[in-house]
Amino acid sequence: MQATILTIGDEILIGQIVDTNSVSIARQLNAAGIVVREKSSIGDNRDDIIAAIRRAEQHSQVIVITGGLGPTKDDITKKTLAELFECGMRFDEAVAHHVEQMLTVRGIAFNALNRSQAEVPEVCTVLHNAHGTAPGMWFEDAGCVIVSLPGVPFEMEHLMQDEVMPRLKSHFALRQIVHRTLITSGMAESILAETIAPWEESLPAYLKLAYLPAPGIVRLRLSAYEVEGSVVGEEIERQFAALRDMIPDYVVGFETATVEEQIHQILSERGQTLAVAESCTGGKIASKFTAMAGASAYFLAGLTTYSNQAKEQLLGVDPQLIEMHGAVSEEVARAMAEGARSVTGADYAVATTGIAGPTGGSEQKPIGTVWFALATPEKTVAIHHLCGTDRGQVIDRSTAFAIRLLRDELQGRSLFFDAKCK
Amino acid sequence: MQATILTIGDEILIGQIVDTNSVSIARQLNAAGIVVREKSSIGDNRDDIIAAIRRAEQHSQVIVITGGLGPTKDDITKKTLAELFECGMRFDEAVAHHVEQMLTVRGIAFNALNRSQAEVPEVCTVLHNAHGTAPGMWFEDAGCVIVSLPGVPFEMEHLMQDEVMPRLKSHFALRQIVHRTLITSGMAESILAETIAPWEESLPAYLKLAYLPAPGIVRLRLSAYEVEGSVVGEEIERQFAALRDMIPDYVVGFETATVEEQIHQILSERGQTLAVAESCTGGKIASKFTAMAGASAYFLAGLTTYSNQAKEQLLGVDPQLIEMHGAVSEEVARAMAEGARSVTGADYAVATTGIAGPTGGSEQKPIGTVWFALATPEKTVAIHHLCGTDRGQVIDRSTAFAIRLLRDELQGRSLFFDAKCK
Repeated sequence: MQATILTIGDEILIGQIVDTNSVSIARQLNAAGIVVREKSSIGDNRDDIIAAIRRAEQHSQVIVITGGLGPTKDDITKKTLAELFECGMRFDEAVAHHVEQMLTVRGIAFNALNRSQAEVPEVCTVLHNAHGTAPGMWFEDAGCVIVSLPGVPFEMEHLMQDEVMPRLKSHFALRQIVHRTLITSGMAESILAETIAPWEESLPAYLKLAYLPAPGIVRLRLSAYEVEGSVVGEEIERQFAALRDMIPDYVVGFETATVEEQIHQILSERGQTLAVAESCTGGKIASKFTAMAGASAYFLAGLTTYSNQAKEQLLGVDPQLIEMHGAVSEEVARAMAEGARSVTGADYAVATTGIAGPTGGSEQKPIGTVWFALATPEKTVAIHHLCGTDRGQVIDRSTAFAIRLLRDELQGRSLFFDAKCK
Repeated sequence: MQATILTIGDEILIGQIVDTNSVSIARQLNAAGIVVREKSSIGDNRDDIIAAIRRAEQHSQVIVITGGLGPTKDDITKKTLAELFECGMRFDEAVAHHVEQMLTVRGIAFNALNRSQAEVPEVCTVLHNAHGTAPGMWFEDAGCVIVSLPGVPFEMEHLMQDEVMPRLKSHFALRQIVHRTLITSGMAESILAETIAPWEESLPAYLKLAYLPAPGIVRLRLSAYEVEGSVVGEEIERQFAALRDMIPDYVVGFETATVEEQIHQILSERGQTLAVAESCTGGKIASKFTAMAGASAYFLAGLTTYSNQAKEQLLGVDPQLIEMHGAVSEEVARAMAEGARSVTGADYAVATTGIAGPTGGSEQKPIGTVWFALATPEKTVAIHHLCGTDRGQVIDRSTAFAIRLLRDELQGRSLFFDAKCK
């Protein structure tokens, strides 16, 4: 069973928005065993919309369309679908009533434009949009199901989950798709591929392996399409167990597991606490921890000490250290980590100080130079790395590296054993 | 001049990653006057890649491809392009040398897989990837330019900017595309459309109007394709000036400039400084500012005081205030903002304290309750809002709201004029 996702809107083609709708739709279709063959984005243009649907019908039995359903003139998806399916429009009383109610709650007048949202192509089945004013629509055409949903992410999400997926599951006899991802950290992609080559070569043919590198990690995904899920699931578990035995020190976990989640779990279990002192990472390490529910159990404080004065006043860094060695130095990194432990009373503190760029580099300390320090109840350690050349890259890589340093320490591994800022 | 963007990778089709590459590519092409006709994502599949390129060649003179250039077996873009253009592979010594150098700096061995990254199709021109190991490639085929770039976002970004765009500009005679966006706030899309209908109807035919609603705002974009930029630019200015006169209280500003960028500019110009004291936003406000190059000119420090103790020790919040009113309260928010000003010496300080969830809510203070405070040289103000029900949503919305509060103050507007946490 194959699907095409069509997102409609000039704003996508000019790069004014990031399309997250198709990500969510793809996930839901995959989870139900429907293979997404293609995702395509086109403008608010009648001919392009019709051509894209006709083309998708040639290889897909499911077409999910988002966008172009607003009440204003630039949105033309609805009337284009009526043209494509050669039908007129009908006024849906239930939709009109729902729209009027929604607007009343928000104190907005029900005008002619809102009323037009209740006009739908005669041949469609209306899908109730509980969270918005544009109804979803379900069409069937020559064995193919075409679904049109509003582009507002929240509304689209609920419509997919509550209306579209249950209908697709009862409409088609679906097989299963299995994806399982193992997360590794600390080994460059090329070295990892070389190391696990014998394992990769012995994989059964129906398992497809993908390498997905990202700052600090390489994800390995095994996928099987349109199979018996339970049997394949067990085989993937066996394969990943074998892989884990090959590279035990580099496996972080599965699926979306992150290194900060490992730390979250360890510190929560042990009842220990954490503080961070950030310069070049600028609050990003703190935000990684505090994004996780329950972080308040161990995360005491993050100090983003961007100025020298802040390093001195908030962390008690000796001004002479900064004067002698510069703010980006082993001495200052150590003093920041120790200062963070001491002012917050945390068991562990991680510190970063570096040159994110695009200016501020020198020959001795080029852009990308970052000093890291980790203060524990027993010791303080420090290390430096070149973390790239682009500001965003330096911030992301040094954030990932600092978190990994802490994780390695908490897991009792030889510190910095994979001390590379990737 | 029309273009197609092709992103390659199974991870896109299964919804494992959000495609931001095509956003950046679309923006750069548009800025140079190249209209993006379609964006398409396909899997790591030979036949699909070839079919997609052949199809794009029918209507596009520029095809930008990203992804599938890694050193591992699942990446097949390079060999598929060689097949499509019916040529062999050649070994590029300069690429090999660059890859080896990059790996050496990071302490990674140069193995056979890395070496294979220097193999390129004979007919392509290599585009130097200064920030990564996979070279970009430029092909010309029957009047069409096909560019293949790695999928790692910052590598792709630099290649587009430094290698692809200059070449496209000298290869083609390009006209201009003009997009200008006006941001409104406080009027629902349907009411706005009704109100400005006379203006919309009188627009010249070559100006295309789009409505882009988002939580709290409606953006109005005027676009003109393949025109003489300066003349059209002036006409758009005139049209937006007329629109502004119709709805003066609802116009927030122009373009995609973020609110933090506005603050960045104002503080840099005035030589004033900023500190932030974050509880529920957990470092995210700090990271928004520190992501911008030059933030060190005004951003002194961020204090992510997650624990009560940190609020007391780092910001000097009176423990009795927390005891009497709770950590999520007007009193504590004010004390945090004032404390941040006082310990850092900053001119302005913003503070957040709230309940991000999923636990910790109560009847009086449900999940999503956030108190904000802003301390300035003259005064301290505070306000609270319900910022949603989902942890990520609460963090994002309260981060955006806190930044908006500061911006409004710096622009001398009546504080909280659109005080809704969206």
